[in-house]
Amino acid sequence: MSQILRQQIEKITPLTDKEFEYILSHFTFKKLKKHQFLIQENDTVQNDHFVVKGLLKAYYVNHEGKEHIMQFAMEDWWVTDYQAYFNQTVATLNIDCLEPTEVLCLSIHNREKLCADMHKIEHSFRKKSNLGYVALQRRILSLLNSNAKERYEQLLQQYPTLFQRVPKTLIASYLGVSRETLSRLSS
Amino acid sequence: MSQILRQQIEKITPLTDKEFEYILSHFTFKKLKKHQFLIQENDTVQNDHFVVKGLLKAYYVNHEGKEHIMQFAMEDWWVTDYQAYFNQTVATLNIDCLEPTEVLCLSIHNREKLCADMHKIEHSFRKKSNLGYVALQRRILSLLNSNAKERYEQLLQQYPTLFQRVPKTLIASYLGVSRETLSRLSS
Repeated sequence: MSQILRQQIEKITPLTDKEFEYILSHFTFKKLKKHQFLIQENDTVQNDHFVVKGLLKAYYVNHEGKEHIMQFAMEDWWVTDYQAYFNQTVATLNIDCLEPTEVLCLSIHNREKLCADMHKIEHSFRKKSNLGYVALQRRILSLLNSNAKERYEQLLQQYPTLFQRVPKTLIASYLGVSRETLSRLSS
Repeated sequence: MSQILRQQIEKITPLTDKEFEYILSHFTFKKLKKHQFLIQENDTVQNDHFVVKGLLKAYYVNHEGKEHIMQFAMEDWWVTDYQAYFNQTVATLNIDCLEPTEVLCLSIHNREKLCADMHKIEHSFRKKSNLGYVALQRRILSLLNSNAKERYEQLLQQYPTLFQRVPKTLIASYLGVSRETLSRLSS
């Protein structure tokens, strides 16, 4: 089960069995049911989460009660409220499970400890963070530039599996388009 | 001049004079005139740039010739086409100078060398990247959620100096609103 975490790290830097065991000892395991919350608005955010199995959505609810989806997360993805996690403030996002889900949890304390202890894990986290930064820049450009049809097609091309697992309403919310627009595009 | 780079790194991790000298030896210096390009679309992207003096904008031009601003950068900020820089592909962004500008340039080779040589500089780059990630997530939420007025006020609150230095047309392009809307908001 933890092998997919090892595979992810080893895409960046090779590990011995002992090193991986040491890394893994800094994580805790959590199992959640469909619809269960991993994080709710105003929670203190203890952990970053590596998804071993399942599907989650991280979203913001505005003062009119409208949901805006920040990200989805499935196997091999990380998810938390990063602003709250890195700054140790309370959550502004909600994260709940669209499917039964299993995650490996890493506290900020353990993350910093691991990074201080092992240069190669700090290296791996830096590289992951750089890739994440680029992905968010692409999403910003797509929000600024593309029309609904182009956004839809970009997402379909980038994450084909998402479309089989995520309801259309949520895809629409992620893309910042109306449900009706999306139905027209995907029919 | 390089002191502002040292100050930025030392907000995260203290450095000896010798360490900073070693770090600095991996940078090259570049001086640009107002309107000069730092990067043009389809260039190979050699460097990330730390702004010592001046003001730049990084933007995407769509196939109708419309500009979308990805970011501004002034003193103490970093700027490049990160997708092209990290993946070593050609630029999709343009970056040019709104004021006479001086930057310190760090090639990807030197960045990786520094990070491999000095754990503490890798640490500092990881922390910076995490903060950058959070800032981009906030911008995405603001694009998904906020109306033009709210976006304008958030930007004004976050970066008051930008407003004194950047023409209104460009602020409008950054916020993804029309020039007319912005004039109404800022009058």
